[in-house]
Formats: sequence, C-alpha cells, structure tokens
Amino acid sequence: MRYCFGVDVGGTTVKMGLFSTEGDILDKWEIPTRTENEGEAVLPDTAESVLQKMKEKGIASVDVEGVGIGIPAPVTAEGIVKDSANVGWKYKEVKRELEELLGGIKVRAGNDANVAALGEMWLGAGKGEKNLIMVTLGTGVGGGIVIGGQMLVGENGAGGEIGHLCVKRDEEESCGCGLRGCLEQYASATGIARLAKLRLAKNDDETILRGTNPDAKAVFDAVKAGDAVAIQIAEEFGVYLGEAMANLAVVINPAVIVIGGGVSRAGDVLLPFIEKPFQKKAFFANRETRFVLAALGSDAGICGAARLILE
Amino acid sequence: MRYCFGVDVGGTTVKMGLFSTEGDILDKWEIPTRTENEGEAVLPDTAESVLQKMKEKGIASVDVEGVGIGIPAPVTAEGIVKDSANVGWKYKEVKRELEELLGGIKVRAGNDANVAALGEMWLGAGKGEKNLIMVTLGTGVGGGIVIGGQMLVGENGAGGEIGHLCVKRDEEESCGCGLRGCLEQYASATGIARLAKLRLAKNDDETILRGTNPDAKAVFDAVKAGDAVAIQIAEEFGVYLGEAMANLAVVINPAVIVIGGGVSRAGDVLLPFIEKPFQKKAFFANRETRFVLAALGSDAGICGAARLILE
Repeated sequence: MRYCFGVDVGGTTVKMGLFSTEGDILDKWEIPTRTENEGEAVLPDTAESVLQKMKEKGIASVDVEGVGIGIPAPVTAEGIVKDSANVGWKYKEVKRELEELLGGIKVRAGNDANVAALGEMWLGAGKGEKNLIMVTLGTGVGGGIVIGGQMLVGENGAGGEIGHLCVKRDEEESCGCGLRGCLEQYASATGIARLAKLRLAKNDDETILRGTNPDAKAVFDAVKAGDAVAIQIAEEFGVYLGEAMANLAVVINPAVIVIGGGVSRAGDVLLPFIEKPFQKKAFFANRETRFVLAALGSDAGICGAARLILE
Repeated sequence: MRYCFGVDVGGTTVKMGLFSTEGDILDKWEIPTRTENEGEAVLPDTAESVLQKMKEKGIASVDVEGVGIGIPAPVTAEGIVKDSANVGWKYKEVKRELEELLGGIKVRAGNDANVAALGEMWLGAGKGEKNLIMVTLGTGVGGGIVIGGQMLVGENGAGGEIGHLCVKRDEEESCGCGLRGCLEQYASATGIARLAKLRLAKNDDETILRGTNPDAKAVFDAVKAGDAVAIQIAEEFGVYLGEAMANLAVVINPAVIVIGGGVSRAGDVLLPFIEKPFQKKAFFANRETRFVLAALGSDAGICGAARLILE
C-alpha cells in the first residue's frame, strides 16, 4: 500500500490525516498550533508528528507519496505564503521548509478553502467529478474551484475568492475587504443575520423571529417551521448566492456546486432557495449543474490536502 | 528539431501552421472549409493537408509531437464536439477521428476562443505568464481563461464564456443567448454601437458622431479626436468591461488580461477606459493585474492550437 498525509493548519489546532493513495482514511489526529514567535514551531511540530506516525505504523519514507498541507492564507503554486496572520507567519517557504524537515518527502501546499474543495471532489459530495465549485458559508464566505481535477490557485495564490464577487453594485455598507456589495455581505452567517435584521425593521409583519435578533440558524429553523418572513429572508439570500453562482458558472462550467460551512448545516431545506434563482439566470451550458451539500464537514481540509499530493 | 501543427477551423477557411516545439512559426497556410454534408470533408481535408506538408518538408511522424485543433464550438476535455453550426458538424469525436486520419499522430482539440488565449500566452501578449484571461471584443464577446498554464475547458467544454457574464441585472433587452444584461450587450462591437445610439438619443449634445449611426471604430476614432460625447460612450463601455474583469479576477487571480478582437484595433487608447474602473473595484490581490492588447491577431488560433499539444 502507498500512503499520503493531509495536514490542515488552523489558528488553534493542526489537523492531520493518514491516507492510502486510494482514498481510505487510515488515521486522524491533531496537535496544537503554536503560533508564538511568528509561528516558528508550526512546521517542525507538523514534521515531527508525521514522522512519529510513520514510525508508529511502520511506514517507510519510500512508501509515502507525500504530504499535502492546507494553510489559512493565499499560497502560491510554488508553496510560498506571504503572510498568514492566523498562524503567525510572515514570508514562509512552506513547501521547501517542510520538505527539508521531512528528510525529502514531497510536499505540496495550498490555501485551506481551495484545498477543502479538492477534498470534497476526492472523497466527499463531488466524488467522481472533475469540475467543481465549493462555497463555504461560515462567518465569511470562502470558496475553492477545481478545474479538470486541479485546484485553481491563481497568480498570487488568491484564486477562488468567491466571497468577494460583487453581487450588488449600489451597496452602501462596506465589506471587510474594503469593497462594497461582496457576496459575503449577504450569504455568510453574518450576512444572513444582517438580511434578517433589515427585513424585520422594514415593517411589522408577524413572524416568530420578531424580537429575537435571529442568527442564520434561527432563520432556517423558522423556514422549516413555515414562517413567511423567514422564507422571504431565505429567498433574498438565495437570489444573491444563486445568481452569483450562475454568473461564476458562465466561466467555470462546473458539473457540481458544493455548499458547505456552518450555514449548510441547515440541511436540504437550503438548496431550493439557491437552485431556483440559479436556474433562472443559468447560461444554457450550465442548466445541468447540480447543487449538493458538503459531505466531509471539518475533514474536508485533511482530505483535500492529501489529495493535493496526488494531483 | 521537434514539430507540432496548429489548426484553426473557421466557417470559411481552415488556417494551419507548422511550429517547432520551441515556438517558432515555420510555415502558415490555409485551405477552404467544405461545410457541405455536415462538414464530413473537414477533418479528412485537414489531415491530408498536414500529411502533405510533412512530406513536402521531409518531416517524419516520429518527429511530430502532435496536432492541436481549435473549433468554433464547445469541445469537451475528451475532444468531442456536440454541435458546431459553423462547420456543419453534429456529434463529432474530433480527437479520435483526426488521430485515425493522421495514422496515430496525437491530437488535442479545444474551443477556438479558449485556444486563442493559450496562443497569446505562448507567443503573444501574455508570453511568460501562466494565469491569463483573454477577452475577444468582436461582433460578440468571446473569451478564454488560462490557469497555471492550462486552458480552462469546463464540464461540457463551455468554460470561459466571458461574454455572458451578467453585468446589468435590470437590462430589458435580451442577449442572443436569451439572458439579459450580458457583457456582450455592452462591450462587443455591436454593443458599443448600441451604447452610442442610446447616448446620442439621450440629448442633443454636440458631437462629431451626430447623424452618423457610428460603429465601434467611429466611436474610438472620435475619442482620439477628443470628442466629449464619444469619451462618455467609451467610459460607459469601460465601466461594464472593467468591472466585469474585476469581478472575474476575484476568482481567477490572473497576472494579465489580454484584450483582443476587432475592437482592440482601436489601440492603446482603449486600455485606460478599462483599467480605471477595474482598479476601482479590484480585490486587493489583483491590484497588480495588467491589461495588454492582443499581439497575434488572427494567428492566435493556430499558435494556441499548436500549444495545446504541448500542455
């Protein structure tokens, strides 16, 4: 059997997985992320943990295809990070440094959201597909794009920043990125809460959300209960996200669009709100594009990182 | 020396080029496109012409890396066309059929606009770059996207359809594709003429365009002459195109955006109209993205087709 490792670096923990190159998860574990001193211990800790796992399982270096690593920052095609606030790194040659620490085992590095898309393609909701968009609806809106089975990296490693597609030219509030009208302002958990607040302030229509300062979960719970105002909020969210995906599909021509992140825990109730406006604005070549919920949860990162080494 | 051929199939002629794999154009010629009987002669004619050229130049099959071919229709990653009205084809396994006709020489097929982007990357305005968007401003707006040195094909071969990005949600006129507010409606030669017509009808401001029913060339000629109304029309065109490119760059993160097609013959005067609105809406990672005019003209197709075989 041949092996590969997937590493998902977060601000608090480094998640790790041991995989067969066929895609079986053989082991999962995590270590703390030691961010002090510009995160100087993160790669040595990671390497040590990988080497220890190999020793424990009796795996020789020659049987390891490589180690893939996802990082919460733009990562260039050469595996270089310019700045990763969450990990403490400034300029970091992740690929080169980790390869040295691992005694020459091959390393590939990628942005964590892009890598997660690759994970869903390999072992999750996009299994068997080669052209896929993944949208992660969390505090913000992240994303990753896979084209012909390969991750879209971009010139500075900043490809796939779906959350910053402009969906409302005349927005007056600013997004965290400094622009206005970014998808993230309407389709993230924060964005949905904001849409809810604006809708509730519009008039005094009766709704179980009244007086509750609802978050995204509360909105979709109310949708499930048949609340008319909650349904209107979900429709507004769906138009922003569905039309943005229709527009993105014009250039990407994906087989499948995977919806992940905390908001996606609302479940299947979510999809029709996105699919309907998508179909209304879909270019003819994309009418068969399917929407599915992410399947790997927080394992998408380690799965995609491991897959990265097999690209 | 090793060789490759680039073939660019159009509705009237099939353009062909003989290249060294290093990128020297060694010969260029063309044959008529015989579209009758569902274009049954097109691939045999092409193969015969390639084989004849090899004989003429004394090139053996083993010294030919392959033949790339660009087609005015979506082409799947497997080299299959579902329907190409301009050539007369219905379902056509272009790669397989042409390989058979060429006695086993390797063939790769792609959409002509996507292939042209690859050509500009290899030998034209994007030379040395790996992440590139090409926009072709002709009767319509075509496009091609290159990511990490590889052409974006998409699930049905319909990737890179930049002309159908929605740039105006409240447009009332329909695009040829059936949707409304497509970039093509404002940034093609036809679109610019339409913007000019609407602007002239708005009031009776003095302009050398008055009473002339101006086309795109006339608009940019008037811009060069300093005509204030023509400059307003160019600005409107530039906002649609520049903002669409800013939005597309959010996900593609390109090094360079190449502007080609008939409209680009207006020359350098064109670029600031696009760059200014682009910069205003650019995501921070894309502030260094450069705009350049296409360099290969009608040779982009054969160059890109030849490059396709070297991917």
